[in-house]
Amino acid sequence: MRDFTFYNPTRIEFGKGKEENIGQYIKAFGVGSVLVLHGSDRIKKDGLFDSITASLEEQGIRFETIGGVISNPLISRVRDAIEVVKQNGLQGILAVGGGSVLDSAKAVAAGAKYDNDVWDFFVGKAEVKEALPVFSIMTLAATGSEMNPYGVVTNSETQQKYAIGAPLLFPKVSVINPDLMASVTPEYLAYSAVDIFSHCLDLYFTASYLPGYTTALIENILETVMRTTNALMNNPEDYDARGEFAWAATMALNGNTFVGVEGNAYDTHMIEHAMGALYNVPHGAGLAVVLPAWMQEIKDQKLERFERFAKKLFDVDSADEGIAGLTQWFTSIGAPVTFAQAGLSEDTVDPIAENAFGNAKLWGMDQVYSKERIAKILKLAVK
Amino acid sequence: MRDFTFYNPTRIEFGKGKEENIGQYIKAFGVGSVLVLHGSDRIKKDGLFDSITASLEEQGIRFETIGGVISNPLISRVRDAIEVVKQNGLQGILAVGGGSVLDSAKAVAAGAKYDNDVWDFFVGKAEVKEALPVFSIMTLAATGSEMNPYGVVTNSETQQKYAIGAPLLFPKVSVINPDLMASVTPEYLAYSAVDIFSHCLDLYFTASYLPGYTTALIENILETVMRTTNALMNNPEDYDARGEFAWAATMALNGNTFVGVEGNAYDTHMIEHAMGALYNVPHGAGLAVVLPAWMQEIKDQKLERFERFAKKLFDVDSADEGIAGLTQWFTSIGAPVTFAQAGLSEDTVDPIAENAFGNAKLWGMDQVYSKERIAKILKLAVK
Repeated sequence: MRDFTFYNPTRIEFGKGKEENIGQYIKAFGVGSVLVLHGSDRIKKDGLFDSITASLEEQGIRFETIGGVISNPLISRVRDAIEVVKQNGLQGILAVGGGSVLDSAKAVAAGAKYDNDVWDFFVGKAEVKEALPVFSIMTLAATGSEMNPYGVVTNSETQQKYAIGAPLLFPKVSVINPDLMASVTPEYLAYSAVDIFSHCLDLYFTASYLPGYTTALIENILETVMRTTNALMNNPEDYDARGEFAWAATMALNGNTFVGVEGNAYDTHMIEHAMGALYNVPHGAGLAVVLPAWMQEIKDQKLERFERFAKKLFDVDSADEGIAGLTQWFTSIGAPVTFAQAGLSEDTVDPIAENAFGNAKLWGMDQVYSKERIAKILKLAVK
Repeated sequence: MRDFTFYNPTRIEFGKGKEENIGQYIKAFGVGSVLVLHGSDRIKKDGLFDSITASLEEQGIRFETIGGVISNPLISRVRDAIEVVKQNGLQGILAVGGGSVLDSAKAVAAGAKYDNDVWDFFVGKAEVKEALPVFSIMTLAATGSEMNPYGVVTNSETQQKYAIGAPLLFPKVSVINPDLMASVTPEYLAYSAVDIFSHCLDLYFTASYLPGYTTALIENILETVMRTTNALMNNPEDYDARGEFAWAATMALNGNTFVGVEGNAYDTHMIEHAMGALYNVPHGAGLAVVLPAWMQEIKDQKLERFERFAKKLFDVDSADEGIAGLTQWFTSIGAPVTFAQAGLSEDTVDPIAENAFGNAKLWGMDQVYSKERIAKILKLAVK
């Protein structure tokens, strides 16, 4: 067991109708006004927006609204939102949506208490020393953003998909109501499953030391995701499956999988962020393309762990069979596993490798990943 | 998945030498003075006390010390400690020891901000509305007290072993350094393993609804405890095993095993508390006696889950074989599984059943457990 600090103060309110109490949850923190940040206008059509604003109004919480946060959320929208917060003197941020909205909300929370450009936090020019409190109501489970202090945002001018992170950015309260996720499309459910797999497997296959308990915890998360995704593909209304899927997403990136671990990194995320930044590939779709190819590249370094993975998840014996099992499963749920399936031509390999190498440098991974090695991995997915 | 709230703000500082930073950890909360609460004087002989007080002094934190907290800790000692805190105007409590010390510390933290007798919190006469901040350095892993808001204390006058609990009683920071646990005797290691098993199995076998994820999480904790206990019985210096054992103890009662669960109770704890209250049986020893007998009594109500348990933990097929496997394992690590082995005569069955029935009434379990049914379970362990 390696040394670690575990700290996660986010309160999760999980269950049916919990979003109707959001006003109370916010009020209890002494917050009297919020920016409601969301994505598409779907929440205005399905009644969720009305339900939330009714709860805010009931508690006398003033609010402004800004929507239009997209998948691979943009720093430009974050800047817009910061302006609204500053102009209206708002005291908190309420994110309503999936990981993109919540990630943006964290950037807004930090940016609203900062005099210069919020992108400074992403490129390491500034540290988050103050932030508005963040609350969330999740409508998509994937990124784990509801219970961690990280956010990933894209700067389309500089073509960088970078991250912000600070203890102050843990959401105060996050609502997870599986019913609010019932309308997620099969396509996005598949992308979400892949994202969770990637959070787990980046760690599982890179860690130089992985305790037995943590190994089994990760396998439990993966097995839960496979079981519940399969169930939801058959029946999107399966509340229990939706709920377990959501909790697996939360657990995959809330600190539990880091316990006692040494030497883990975010290899597939490092590569995928380039695909999102350059070609706006949905995060989970990009990861589905990268993950099996990356596993192929690194399998010999951690053969025993790959064999354990193969046995546990797919009841097969070899690393290759395990990778094939995962690839087949991704395909079975509708996730793309080749460049072509993700709508990318072979010509994109080089610019993606170039951009990803920029990430590798920023993340201190350029000793392990040259531009050439990244290109080699990507080419395994060009079929 | 049933509705739940997950909230656990305790920060865990896990690893070698982390206790040497305790002064910094405390200072960061603006706490300028503490009561150092401990058990035996062993910590004064092995250098731990000196190391802690050096860290406190370095940070200018004033402290008073009170020791003598025993296994099945007494409310009388808690009252003594509250007096010291009040007389010296201390601002926090630092528990150094195992669950008994930390449980007592929580009671002291609440009692120090309360004008009447602290036992009021245990019998439901008062709610904890204010408490001093609690910090801990664990020297024994078992109760999970380092990352939860509960404490169990015995009132020897009224022969009640009761619990206190409130969100304010989550420790602010708990230090888990496996090295500090290396001197735990094999006997107490066994008791600790049983305590963790009991925290898990009370829930596993009583829950009317148990999500697949949570089921596997509990099994992971149990497998980790078995694997690491066996390793430590062979080699008490096995740091990784000691560390994983400690984290399994923490996870068994920090809220994670309750996720999405319905209808769980604390059957074996309800019975064992009577053994501790009346005959000062070590908690884990009492539980080792009660657990297999209780499983025998209830197995038919949850046959499928018992069979799963049997398969997962002992690779056998039937509920009976699973119970036998657990009984044998308890015996193999030196935990008592009969009244005689725990030093109790058959005559104690009736008073224990009587006292436990008092717990059943207090915990709202008297519809399920009559005094006669409790006696029936106990008699299964009189061999």
